Amino acid sequence: MANIRASVPKGTRDFGPVETQKRNYIYDTIKRVFRKYGYQEIQTPTMENLDTLTGKYGDEGDKLIFKILNSGEFYEKALSGKNTEDFNSKSILPLISEKALRYDLTVPFARFVVMHQNDITFPFKRFQIQPVWRADRPQKGRYREFYQCDVDVVGSDSLLNEAEFICIYDEALTNLGLKDFSIKINNRKILTGIAELIGKPQQIVDLTVAIDKLDKIGLEGVEKELLSKGFTPADLETLKPVILLNGSNEDKLAQLKTILNSSETGLKGIEEIETVFAYLSHFEIKTAKIELDLTLARGLNYYTGCIFEVKTNEVAMGSIGGGGRYDDLTGMFGLKNLTGAGVSFGADRIYDVLEELNLFPTTSSEITKALICVFGKAEEDYAIPVLAKLRQQQINAELYPAGAKMKKQMQYANDKNIPFVIVIGGDEVTSGKLTFKNMLTGEQTQETLEDILKKLS
Amino acid sequence: MANIRASVPKGTRDFGPVETQKRNYIYDTIKRVFRKYGYQEIQTPTMENLDTLTGKYGDEGDKLIFKILNSGEFYEKALSGKNTEDFNSKSILPLISEKALRYDLTVPFARFVVMHQNDITFPFKRFQIQPVWRADRPQKGRYREFYQCDVDVVGSDSLLNEAEFICIYDEALTNLGLKDFSIKINNRKILTGIAELIGKPQQIVDLTVAIDKLDKIGLEGVEKELLSKGFTPADLETLKPVILLNGSNEDKLAQLKTILNSSETGLKGIEEIETVFAYLSHFEIKTAKIELDLTLARGLNYYTGCIFEVKTNEVAMGSIGGGGRYDDLTGMFGLKNLTGAGVSFGADRIYDVLEELNLFPTTSSEITKALICVFGKAEEDYAIPVLAKLRQQQINAELYPAGAKMKKQMQYANDKNIPFVIVIGGDEVTSGKLTFKNMLTGEQTQETLEDILKKLS
Repeated sequence: MANIRASVPKGTRDFGPVETQKRNYIYDTIKRVFRKYGYQEIQTPTMENLDTLTGKYGDEGDKLIFKILNSGEFYEKALSGKNTEDFNSKSILPLISEKALRYDLTVPFARFVVMHQNDITFPFKRFQIQPVWRADRPQKGRYREFYQCDVDVVGSDSLLNEAEFICIYDEALTNLGLKDFSIKINNRKILTGIAELIGKPQQIVDLTVAIDKLDKIGLEGVEKELLSKGFTPADLETLKPVILLNGSNEDKLAQLKTILNSSETGLKGIEEIETVFAYLSHFEIKTAKIELDLTLARGLNYYTGCIFEVKTNEVAMGSIGGGGRYDDLTGMFGLKNLTGAGVSFGADRIYDVLEELNLFPTTSSEITKALICVFGKAEEDYAIPVLAKLRQQQINAELYPAGAKMKKQMQYANDKNIPFVIVIGGDEVTSGKLTFKNMLTGEQTQETLEDILKKLS
Repeated sequence: MANIRASVPKGTRDFGPVETQKRNYIYDTIKRVFRKYGYQEIQTPTMENLDTLTGKYGDEGDKLIFKILNSGEFYEKALSGKNTEDFNSKSILPLISEKALRYDLTVPFARFVVMHQNDITFPFKRFQIQPVWRADRPQKGRYREFYQCDVDVVGSDSLLNEAEFICIYDEALTNLGLKDFSIKINNRKILTGIAELIGKPQQIVDLTVAIDKLDKIGLEGVEKELLSKGFTPADLETLKPVILLNGSNEDKLAQLKTILNSSETGLKGIEEIETVFAYLSHFEIKTAKIELDLTLARGLNYYTGCIFEVKTNEVAMGSIGGGGRYDDLTGMFGLKNLTGAGVSFGADRIYDVLEELNLFPTTSSEITKALICVFGKAEEDYAIPVLAKLRQQQINAELYPAGAKMKKQMQYANDKNIPFVIVIGGDEVTSGKLTFKNMLTGEQTQETLEDILKKLS
């Protein structure tokens, strides 16, 4: 067998022990909060039927779906005997592929709900943390395989769910150590109200796409874009005071009520936000700044009520989370009028934030707590029962196999971030006192096994 | 958009909340033990380069690898203008596919070790729990997507590793509640010794394949198979006393030493097993029966030292784990002479065993502990602060959104296995005593919130 160069496909990554541990820390922290709020984990297959995915992400999205080649004699079954000269990639595709890799967690979730609707108890509160694949051009921070982390409830129109998503963000990100972040909230119905106010309700998409960019391109940029889409200077005059509203959330809502008082939909949106804030007043928000942001639009057209976006104020970074309410997620699979709401965590970005702010914990139950080092084979007999006792006390422990230089053994402890080392040489065997080294401080003492066990427990 | 029937590809499965929780229970229990012995988790990409996988699993295996179609204009790039009439599936494949889905965790692990050899601290102790994909014909218990759970050490020839694998099996399966299981051990060098004894060392594979079936086809069947492979009746007379050896492990080793005393390799194998047993004498084995089984061969040819297989004695079921030592895992990627050893857990089978023996725990930190039910919107104001207090005490809690019939709310608690329900109606609001129901016993009492918090903590 010829030697193959060891490599991974472009845009995919290995996660070694340190990265995996840090990623587990993020996911475990978030999962604990999801469960505290009654959400349960589900998992869907890596492969979906191609027709489940096709047409859900637009033409551009369809191109980025990774397709699986039919197995066996796919060519003979599908193409042989046909005039393949006339074929192109698009026309051949359905003949040689009927499965594809999951592109996001939303469509598989909708498919799951419809497929298992008779077994599901509604409201159905689920979370899902799994990889997805996109045949995008890889670049810094963009991968072809990456994880999504979604939490959704379907079958409940209560705005308590929206309030709880804010609590979930606050609690999870606080538990991860973030000290300054904002949860922005808006409501699609308010945006509709604004479009009605201007008298161009059918141009709601153009309007929201433009004002969503206020942060990036400034008021002038937004106005320029809107003028190019057929909005008039008079429209802009109506719009400007709305999107530039400031003050507290309460101030903004009060002013908005006056401005939108002719739009039933707009007022409904305001009422929904007020209800969410009323629920929130009963919960302790630990860290998050909650900001009504009337320029927040979120690209996806399926949102129909409250929408959210989360940003850290400690590091320059795009949004680390977002979501909202939708009214027709499962319609594409034939189950109509099932309302739902959901948000997601941008775990890869959160990883980068924690890394930059040095917020990953230094210790972890995933790491070996004590490494036993022996000078030679002779001390192993003494060391093995020590190892057994450590593990009996549920302490993660290892013995470095006899025969290596002490320096190499210490290096091993360092590389694995093992906080304590127990050295056993001839002296230790004779005296019964073991050398106990704290790898962080460098402090080294002689201790009985009993004292060491106490210190490690 | 036309409605699509909601379904998953043949041989793949959704895991709903209950299954996911049970699967997490198994993996978390096993992972905790892996970490206690110093093993750390890694993850490799779902996709590998096709040439990383091809040729590693034999011709049959190659056919079962799921291939990913190149993205974009794969046809125009690869086939257009060529005389595709002469093509067949095999010749077209490399032109339209260069990536494939992981087929097992062993080859990706070897690839990982070679690719990151300069960053890895040896001995490298890793575990990996990820799905793999095989285009097998689906049947009961055989899926196209399933999880493997592997634990391996490379770069250490110490037999302490082998002893610790036995401890890991014992501890993990004991923690999962199994009460009667056997860990069988043998050594490839002993099997080589037996082949030498018969005088047919080059026929070691035929020999081991046959005697591996002793359990299934009996002595007569084994003899018949061996005769058909060119072994003589005299060979069988030599072999018979060896594979039928009985008594304690010590008895068997003692007799074997005499029988194999002319085979240096055979004696080395015996010595390795004795060393493993000597290490084990220092550790407490809680449940496992450890059995030297000279008919144990394990199919894979890359094993070179001790080999293991685990069977439950409580349920009729194939092996629930196995593995062994190998001396050239990474050679296929150009890194020679790196010794290693590893075992795996058959998590799907373990799931079935726990299900059959009713060993899954009834409670879980993944489940909601208390559901608050309200009679109507009016009681929600009273209920929300109760909900907030429960969560402040780190109790997983939910409020059923107001407006549903009490029967439906109770059904929700039942379906989600929620053990406690707190009912808040007008009487409760007036008296300040809440109705607290134990869903398991049906017992229902009136309690203050403080008392409920105490009971739930």
